[in-house]
Amino acid sequence: MAQKAFQTYYPEVMAHCYGCGTLNEYGHQIKSFWDGEESVCHFMPKPYHIAIPGYVYGGMLASLIDCHGTGTAAAAAYRAAGRAMDTEPAFRFLTASLHVDYLKPTPLGIELEIRGKVKDVKGRKVVIEVWIAASGITTVRGEVVAVQVPDEMVAALLQAKPG
Amino acid sequence: MAQKAFQTYYPEVMAHCYGCGTLNEYGHQIKSFWDGEESVCHFMPKPYHIAIPGYVYGGMLASLIDCHGTGTAAAAAYRAAGRAMDTEPAFRFLTASLHVDYLKPTPLGIELEIRGKVKDVKGRKVVIEVWIAASGITTVRGEVVAVQVPDEMVAALLQAKPG
Repeated sequence: MAQKAFQTYYPEVMAHCYGCGTLNEYGHQIKSFWDGEESVCHFMPKPYHIAIPGYVYGGMLASLIDCHGTGTAAAAAYRAAGRAMDTEPAFRFLTASLHVDYLKPTPLGIELEIRGKVKDVKGRKVVIEVWIAASGITTVRGEVVAVQVPDEMVAALLQAKPG
Repeated sequence: MAQKAFQTYYPEVMAHCYGCGTLNEYGHQIKSFWDGEESVCHFMPKPYHIAIPGYVYGGMLASLIDCHGTGTAAAAAYRAAGRAMDTEPAFRFLTASLHVDYLKPTPLGIELEIRGKVKDVKGRKVVIEVWIAASGITTVRGEVVAVQVPDEMVAALLQAKPG
């Protein structure tokens, strides 16, 4: 059976993120998957996601690292708990800190590969190393410190849910 | 005379950035100004720049820090050189590294204030501290290490310029 993207398991009320929410029609809707011990995501920037002509905008690259990082953090939490991703309660992470090193300009017009690797899972905190490659050349490296969405925030969101 | 935004001084060929380019019709077109020793920018996220309901998407906040940082770096370079911003050759910076600490969720629906402070100007490298506040409460703090666009890249861009 084909693997479903991490982001498809986010509860509906937490699936509106501009970077990765499946319900945000204006957003990037990135999709992340396991590839052995690493996670992987492919993304094609739009022509207007430009920095200087020919290169991808750094804020877009930071966003890809951010959302692929939080997605990988959720998937890692399920793995650490020995649970399938379709079991309740759902894991959903927010970014506590983000670090991005732009090693070289990232060419625009090429599908990017974003990869993640779990560095640490400790309680509600997960640290993910993420890097981006264009045509097999790594252009950006980053780290995401992700924390599980606080229970009271989840409760408030579920209560505020329309319908 | 009213102060013009830093970004309005970017050479045309380098004014296409999705975050801050005045010529990118799809982009955020942020505008940064001096406010004494600090730089300041105001930005109203769109309703779809959402993380979880009620809060601003972290990738957007990282983008604001990034572009306000590079804008402030350019302005700081003119100050350090004792030059007005409308003199040639123009200063334009790219991000070498970006660090963002999300201190607390940033509420959506409020105009954000992004402030920058020059930490260091050394040769072609400028370090800028940036923070974001909503209703006077600082929610995000970051740091941008910006480097001046390499001369050969500027030359290539000017050469490739249509017309």
